[in-house]
Amino acid sequence: MARILTGIQSTGTPHLGNIIGAILPAIENSKDKNNDSFLFIADLHSLTQIKDATVLKNNTYSVAAAWLAFGLDPNESVFYRQSDVPECTELAWYLNCFFPFQRLKLAHSFKDKSDRLEDINAGLFVYPMLMAADILLYDANLVPVGKDQLQHLEMARDVASRINHKYKNVFIVPEPLTTKDSMLIPGTDGDKMSKSKNNTIDIFQGNADIKKIVNKQIVTDNIPLEDPKDPYISTVYKLYSVIADEDSAAQMAKKLQAGGYGWGHAKKELISIIETKFDNPREKFNYYISHKEELDIILESGAAKARKVAKATLDRVRNQIGY
Amino acid sequence: MARILTGIQSTGTPHLGNIIGAILPAIENSKDKNNDSFLFIADLHSLTQIKDATVLKNNTYSVAAAWLAFGLDPNESVFYRQSDVPECTELAWYLNCFFPFQRLKLAHSFKDKSDRLEDINAGLFVYPMLMAADILLYDANLVPVGKDQLQHLEMARDVASRINHKYKNVFIVPEPLTTKDSMLIPGTDGDKMSKSKNNTIDIFQGNADIKKIVNKQIVTDNIPLEDPKDPYISTVYKLYSVIADEDSAAQMAKKLQAGGYGWGHAKKELISIIETKFDNPREKFNYYISHKEELDIILESGAAKARKVAKATLDRVRNQIGY
Repeated sequence: MARILTGIQSTGTPHLGNIIGAILPAIENSKDKNNDSFLFIADLHSLTQIKDATVLKNNTYSVAAAWLAFGLDPNESVFYRQSDVPECTELAWYLNCFFPFQRLKLAHSFKDKSDRLEDINAGLFVYPMLMAADILLYDANLVPVGKDQLQHLEMARDVASRINHKYKNVFIVPEPLTTKDSMLIPGTDGDKMSKSKNNTIDIFQGNADIKKIVNKQIVTDNIPLEDPKDPYISTVYKLYSVIADEDSAAQMAKKLQAGGYGWGHAKKELISIIETKFDNPREKFNYYISHKEELDIILESGAAKARKVAKATLDRVRNQIGY
Repeated sequence: MARILTGIQSTGTPHLGNIIGAILPAIENSKDKNNDSFLFIADLHSLTQIKDATVLKNNTYSVAAAWLAFGLDPNESVFYRQSDVPECTELAWYLNCFFPFQRLKLAHSFKDKSDRLEDINAGLFVYPMLMAADILLYDANLVPVGKDQLQHLEMARDVASRINHKYKNVFIVPEPLTTKDSMLIPGTDGDKMSKSKNNTIDIFQGNADIKKIVNKQIVTDNIPLEDPKDPYISTVYKLYSVIADEDSAAQMAKKLQAGGYGWGHAKKELISIIETKFDNPREKFNYYISHKEELDIILESGAAKARKVAKATLDRVRNQIGY
């Protein structure tokens, strides 16, 4: 049985792109009985950028509510808030002492962030060691990573190997589970949907808001209603096709290609499928958001399970390095 | 009542220079009823340089035994091992997220260590934030610091002020208690006594070893026995004068100046005073070293007191920043 550890960024309410591209596949994965799934909301990492207590807290609740709304079963996996397991910060300190400063300086993501962000704090710089601690603390075998996180995983493997080399069998060296380039979900402007591009669709909003966003923000060409249209270059169709089942998508493609079917019609169908398909998750999401105490209970019970594993690992590490 | 926090490096058995220059004055301080003293053995810091579990562990025991042997009262002060209070690593993570990477790069001590040491790890680099956490965690008012640590204390004050500015009254901003340039205790070669210079006198050794070191390692000039000698340029006299009471020191000075009294005589008196004056602490030290379980009990009980304060501070911090 492989232990798979997934870190979940908590930068706000997950949008359609997050849900289809990341959350649904991860939940699918967590249902595999051959896997032992650990999933955590990386709210300690969020502190590198979010310096507003209410935002930080609410982001965690939104993310937790979204994952649960889409069917993550907290009894089948270990689902917790990173900040509820402070053992990771202790392990991060130990790892810091074994990882060369110069190698940390080579991290692409820090360079990238240094170029982009205003608040370039020491946390951003040592973050790869916190991530390594998150992984090594749970003896994770597999870590699903996108391209941008692959170097961080390499650093986790590196520091684990350095310590294993000096002492005896301290860590399990994790393997990357390279995720296929996650399905490209277009945003309202046709580019990849991303919070930083301001082109997201929030499916948890009320129907009026969804309607407004689809109608006002998705740009279409001005081919007349009666003319045939190419669905495969259209954002409306692309979005519809990742949400709808294959048959419905094929039907919309046909109608667009046939002509006599306009973007207005297509948008109406897109709005309708967003409204109906996510009706149930939206209801669950809203329930959790108005019952945050239930989210706390779920996350705390996950943290209790996580800490049990974390403490055992820390004992092993401390014993080996001399504490 | 001022809370004074003192960090104790644990780089090995304290030598004569450490004892007279640092330990005795600090113990004196801790007896002041106007102070609330926290003293900790900085064994998390040691991991930046010591990658040998036995050495790391034994250094902590030696340091604890030495402080207790010289009269530190663990009931009158909070005396603990840093690694028994992992809360400091959690706080260090939070502080990292508020301290500019570029300011950390300006730390003299890191530059100095980068020049001197082979193992330049990330722990060395972020160490000032661990030190800041050690201080802020206990709401310390005063921190005795030598010149070399003054910049680190400035960083602790800086990060505390940054956070206090963003949130409300999170930290007490500590003040430095600049120690007078600690009394210069000469080593066997006449230079300042320091482990790195290999010129130390270990008063906890057996008498035979002390005799050997004084006789073989302290260099003297070859002015004949019968001639007058200048005590104030002599390492033997300097060492004798920091250990002996004023009268005895004055007597030795007179005898040297009078002539007819050689270095051999002076060394004999020096050996004798090291042997007798430290007889009682040596006995206690050896007792603790062969009863490490008692050291553990003392340090753990100190850690329990420290953690109570640490947890209250962490709760306050977490609550303010959004956890």
